[in-house]
Amino acid sequence: MRVFNFSAGPAVLPEEVLSACAEEMLDYHGSGMSVMEMSHRSKVYDDIIKEAEADLRSLLNIPENYKVLFLQGGASQQFAMIPMNLMKNKKAAYIITGEWSKKACQEAQIFGEAISVASSADQNFSYIPDCSDLDIPADADYLYFCDNNTIYGTKHKKLPNAKGHVLVADVSSSFLSEPLDVTKYGIIYGGVQKNVGPAGVVIVIIREDLIPEERLPGTPTMLKFKTHANAGSVYNTPPAYGIYVCGKVFKWLLKNGGLVAMKEHNEKKAAILYDFLDESKLFKGTVRKEDRSLMNVCFNTGTKELDDEFVKESKAAGLDNLKGYRTVGGMRASIYNAMPLAGVEKLVEFMRAFEEKHQ
Amino acid sequence: MRVFNFSAGPAVLPEEVLSACAEEMLDYHGSGMSVMEMSHRSKVYDDIIKEAEADLRSLLNIPENYKVLFLQGGASQQFAMIPMNLMKNKKAAYIITGEWSKKACQEAQIFGEAISVASSADQNFSYIPDCSDLDIPADADYLYFCDNNTIYGTKHKKLPNAKGHVLVADVSSSFLSEPLDVTKYGIIYGGVQKNVGPAGVVIVIIREDLIPEERLPGTPTMLKFKTHANAGSVYNTPPAYGIYVCGKVFKWLLKNGGLVAMKEHNEKKAAILYDFLDESKLFKGTVRKEDRSLMNVCFNTGTKELDDEFVKESKAAGLDNLKGYRTVGGMRASIYNAMPLAGVEKLVEFMRAFEEKHQ
Repeated sequence: MRVFNFSAGPAVLPEEVLSACAEEMLDYHGSGMSVMEMSHRSKVYDDIIKEAEADLRSLLNIPENYKVLFLQGGASQQFAMIPMNLMKNKKAAYIITGEWSKKACQEAQIFGEAISVASSADQNFSYIPDCSDLDIPADADYLYFCDNNTIYGTKHKKLPNAKGHVLVADVSSSFLSEPLDVTKYGIIYGGVQKNVGPAGVVIVIIREDLIPEERLPGTPTMLKFKTHANAGSVYNTPPAYGIYVCGKVFKWLLKNGGLVAMKEHNEKKAAILYDFLDESKLFKGTVRKEDRSLMNVCFNTGTKELDDEFVKESKAAGLDNLKGYRTVGGMRASIYNAMPLAGVEKLVEFMRAFEEKHQ
Repeated sequence: MRVFNFSAGPAVLPEEVLSACAEEMLDYHGSGMSVMEMSHRSKVYDDIIKEAEADLRSLLNIPENYKVLFLQGGASQQFAMIPMNLMKNKKAAYIITGEWSKKACQEAQIFGEAISVASSADQNFSYIPDCSDLDIPADADYLYFCDNNTIYGTKHKKLPNAKGHVLVADVSSSFLSEPLDVTKYGIIYGGVQKNVGPAGVVIVIIREDLIPEERLPGTPTMLKFKTHANAGSVYNTPPAYGIYVCGKVFKWLLKNGGLVAMKEHNEKKAAILYDFLDESKLFKGTVRKEDRSLMNVCFNTGTKELDDEFVKESKAAGLDNLKGYRTVGGMRASIYNAMPLAGVEKLVEFMRAFEEKHQ
């Protein structure tokens, strides 16, 4: 029996995608082999990766002058690849709204000057700072931000004002959860293991003019965007099976109305949970209201004992992975695209009963 | 219906491993979720990765003072990681026996002096040069070689004499096909997509004293062995599903007698094919006899027309992916661990009939 899995990532995937993977495991579309066993240079796999890219382009309405790259190494490797490829003036501006943007900024400091131009560290990242008029150095090569903070449950509701600088966004935990205007960004990237597929694939959507021949001397071949852009993401063997699963998720999104419908679905789920938090006498949300994430909902009871009891009992009730991140404590419900409405309803029902028992 | 898949990689996997993956796709061992959906920090996934490592240690008899790392980026990323982490004196010696060792040597030249100390380029890499008395510079940080050449079908039958230098081996296409003495190496690494699992995982077995705090300035965090060694391969989200499949292949190997039995099985399969090549009037092997690979068997008919006809007709007969690499031409049968004896027997039977038709 499947549980409702509130893991922050790797995270729940659509059940019909998993069923199709299982069914095709020994023989993909009459090829006589598993997708795991296919040459990445074969016609059958070429169709899989090309179709995945085409479907992603359709979902996000990606313009012709942007490349889509399926890479490895996760967001953590992008923390290095981005400065290594983009730091022309060896200077960049970072908005620090949590662990991941902090790590990205620290990594960039290996390669040049990475400056924090805004931060919400003063209140344990429980809000999004005002990014409408940042003091960005004129020669900064880019402005970097993390769209949705998995750990703290915050989300940029408005795009930071980049003031003409290239905008770079880590969208790992909000990827394909709502429409976005690709033309506003220089680079959009995300590890897929939250909303899109299994860990081991990172998708980079990059404006072509930002792909340099070579930027920093000593950049490994595998860490140049150019290498992968020129080779259609098959410079070397790609994470082929992961890309295949992502492709299935793209089809599932298209079939279910695309990103507009997905946003509605996500807003509806989040509202059920946040509305309950706002009326509850026991549970409190940890994030400033206007900055609340639709994907990661952080809350607590106010005491560690009750939080622990809640996590333990919810697991026993088939609501798994609700423990919050150690720097925040309490609980976190990650309710990505593939979390059904029923999961959120059952969670709120459980919270209500828990509250009654403990009032 | 499954075909016999002679792909050079990604390549055939044991059918019972794939069946188990399919069966566990929606609910792994009563966890209520797919392995793709699990937090890499959860107890259930921790057991999977720890057991995979323990089984690999048991298969290869890996000593305590070696670390096992499950990484991303394939062998191509190791081409950079190895010099970035090992080049103390900025000098290394390379044995060039094919495309991959050539690429590894070129990549190392980004970071220091990478010297070719032996090469078989003069005869299109159809043999393994004598590596018993190489002229290795005294201050070379390591001697690098590629154990089995997927493209050309050659194999080092004897370890190169490293003369006290650290020995680094790319074993991608011979990984776990036979026992080896880990203590003779500084680093053994391989992409798993030939003998071990799905593309997107590279396994590095490294002697602990070769893991530096930091070697070359400007090395990204994700490209330091130290980062992953300190974190038990979960510094960031690992390619979790791929590692799970590798773990299943390790169990399959252990169940079938380990690497001694696997070597016998592989020798038997290769002998059937090479014996036929040696007696055939139509087909010729392309590699010097004493250097023949047990994994990749290259051959041709002598004419491009007949080669093309062979590839086409064999595919129709359920023998897939027999086309040779473009720099070699002709045919290549990759007969990794998971290729059953029946596949090789059917191939030879088909070759025999093809020869009779064309004599």
